[in-house]
Amino acid sequence: MDLKGKPLAAVVSAGLSKFGKRDGFSSRELFSEAVMEAFERCPNLDPKRDVKALIVGSMSESFEHQCHLAPIMSDWVGMLPAPALRVEVACASSGAAIRQGVFAILSGLYDVVIVGGFEKMTHRTTAETTEYLAMASDFPFEQWNGATFPGLFALMATAHMYKYGTTEEQMALVAVKNHHNATLNPKAHMQREITVEQVLSSRIIAKPLKLFDCSLISDGASCAILTSVEVARKYTDSPVYIIGSGHGADTIGLYERDDLTSLKATKMAAKEAYEMAGLSPKDIDIAEVHDCFTIAEIIAYEDLGFCKPGDGGKFIEDGTPNLDGEIPVNTSGGLKAKGHPVGATGVAQLYEIYLQLTGQAGKRQVDGWEIGLTHNLGGSGATCIVHIYSGHKY
Amino acid sequence: MDLKGKPLAAVVSAGLSKFGKRDGFSSRELFSEAVMEAFERCPNLDPKRDVKALIVGSMSESFEHQCHLAPIMSDWVGMLPAPALRVEVACASSGAAIRQGVFAILSGLYDVVIVGGFEKMTHRTTAETTEYLAMASDFPFEQWNGATFPGLFALMATAHMYKYGTTEEQMALVAVKNHHNATLNPKAHMQREITVEQVLSSRIIAKPLKLFDCSLISDGASCAILTSVEVARKYTDSPVYIIGSGHGADTIGLYERDDLTSLKATKMAAKEAYEMAGLSPKDIDIAEVHDCFTIAEIIAYEDLGFCKPGDGGKFIEDGTPNLDGEIPVNTSGGLKAKGHPVGATGVAQLYEIYLQLTGQAGKRQVDGWEIGLTHNLGGSGATCIVHIYSGHKY
Repeated sequence: MDLKGKPLAAVVSAGLSKFGKRDGFSSRELFSEAVMEAFERCPNLDPKRDVKALIVGSMSESFEHQCHLAPIMSDWVGMLPAPALRVEVACASSGAAIRQGVFAILSGLYDVVIVGGFEKMTHRTTAETTEYLAMASDFPFEQWNGATFPGLFALMATAHMYKYGTTEEQMALVAVKNHHNATLNPKAHMQREITVEQVLSSRIIAKPLKLFDCSLISDGASCAILTSVEVARKYTDSPVYIIGSGHGADTIGLYERDDLTSLKATKMAAKEAYEMAGLSPKDIDIAEVHDCFTIAEIIAYEDLGFCKPGDGGKFIEDGTPNLDGEIPVNTSGGLKAKGHPVGATGVAQLYEIYLQLTGQAGKRQVDGWEIGLTHNLGGSGATCIVHIYSGHKY
Repeated sequence: MDLKGKPLAAVVSAGLSKFGKRDGFSSRELFSEAVMEAFERCPNLDPKRDVKALIVGSMSESFEHQCHLAPIMSDWVGMLPAPALRVEVACASSGAAIRQGVFAILSGLYDVVIVGGFEKMTHRTTAETTEYLAMASDFPFEQWNGATFPGLFALMATAHMYKYGTTEEQMALVAVKNHHNATLNPKAHMQREITVEQVLSSRIIAKPLKLFDCSLISDGASCAILTSVEVARKYTDSPVYIIGSGHGADTIGLYERDDLTSLKATKMAAKEAYEMAGLSPKDIDIAEVHDCFTIAEIIAYEDLGFCKPGDGGKFIEDGTPNLDGEIPVNTSGGLKAKGHPVGATGVAQLYEIYLQLTGQAGKRQVDGWEIGLTHNLGGSGATCIVHIYSGHKY
């Protein structure tokens, strides 16, 4: 395939903590776990000498009663005096960290940076967690009136069902696929198969979304080592290149949008990333998309151009995004089953694409993939970050 | 003066909301106030057409029960669909926004970005505010044990007094100077003179720091329009250039540091910025430094190289940083009297330097200044961001 764009930066290693209910671990310990894996994968890298900075994403100071986490992470992974920055755009925080890493490398001021993300959530009650997550919606116009994220995505699901005839069964298929993939991922939070019947009969959270339409509350951390294209080969023989980066924005409030069946921020981020890479949706071989709710994955198929608007339900029904399908989506298990420690998710998506494009994905590895895409949403879609990666065929 | 470094980016406009107790205004409204000033100063700029992105700093989601504020700001200032990012390193958040703006411009992906910061604080009780601010110190080892920021800086003050003989009177002089400067700044929170006697007799907050040694809890917002060097002249005849940028990091906990009389992060950030600019401390004409407590300004004089270690007390006694001194420091009134809406502070410092270097500083304008510096601390010094600016003689 002819790559029109030039590589922006290289991924020379990546790491991920085990996702799940990690009792007794704080985010700094989970992040250290992820970073240790990245260092072990990349023995040519001397962390103290080579790494110039850390850029990390996390959503909320409330879970651990702690802001200013960036220098804590630099300290705990032994990187001081490397400077560290936290970026935050709700659940897209570490997707944004990737993008800021790309900026930093393209600027010429840094040649090697660690990007990452983390969130420690499961020690809080469901009420606390729901409240903290709701802070990513608009306080005066959404939170204050009782809207929570299941409710906001339920509005999108209802609109999609009404406009396009999308069914609850089609949404359930997204959950079934992602749970299946997670059984092949030893780091996934929930490694068990589920059936369409189980999804449909699970308790209602916000109609039409049921328990198994919702992603998991998890603890976890992720990281990747980005370098300039010039120095990548010093650290690995099989770099993955970031060839496109896009950032889209929209109103935070759903009530301000013209249409609830599509996310403008996704379309904008995808357009920017595709143009930068010189590619179109048909060039994408594999993708990790932001399935915070099953309807979000269906809308992502459409907004990313994998299928036409309204065809997302049919797309999953046809098995196209299955592990053995034409465009495998969320081979990691996704937010739905791998888990969704919100700040960690963006770079965890990169981690999966990195493993797949370098033949390190174990039981869920499939051959013949070369171009990967990650799609990371913030809130109900006021932010979207898309990246496109080029690797090797395995 | 011979500028060895090349300009990194240009400041073509800037804006600041009135700082103070802004009852009834939310941070989105204060930020809009700042951005309107920046647009009015820069009539050649077409916001919708020219501005490519926003990068904003704010410290805490707790004050307004709101994270994901970046796209809200893009929406409220009429910039959508311009993508927006929030960065957070405690009180250095908008200093970091400037640095990320520089990265973004140097990367070549954006040519015009708005950087800014904001915080809405005064609607909370003192107990709430103290708690939220304390989140910038280490939870398990500082917050949990009752440490608050006045207490942490009191430890530094005590160490400085013990090692160097710095006096409470010298610290008081910092407050007196900054209050005087603020009387000349119509946007300052507290526009009134104070005396050394008033400082010394004010009630003790954390010995030896008294009420008038502490900066203010304020509401406010700041912004600046950064452009690439190439396009700056399209927007203004008098750009100010950013010629140096530094980011330093240190342990978040004071208990981990070798020395409490100096901040490693400041020295590291200053070294990086000076080297990038090809300048040394003696080249600096004017500076805005992070006087969250009076002792912090004294330590900054030393760590930035304006005087030798231990001579900070004498430096203020001699009047060198006064408005009519050799290196005027905090001509705006500083955090002490202009106010300290934490997330807004870094870019508010840039705003003052921008006004001074372009002859727009009104009653506090002094002639003959060409090179300015801003120094923005996070927490008790785990983060420091330093920028150096080159302007015109006025």
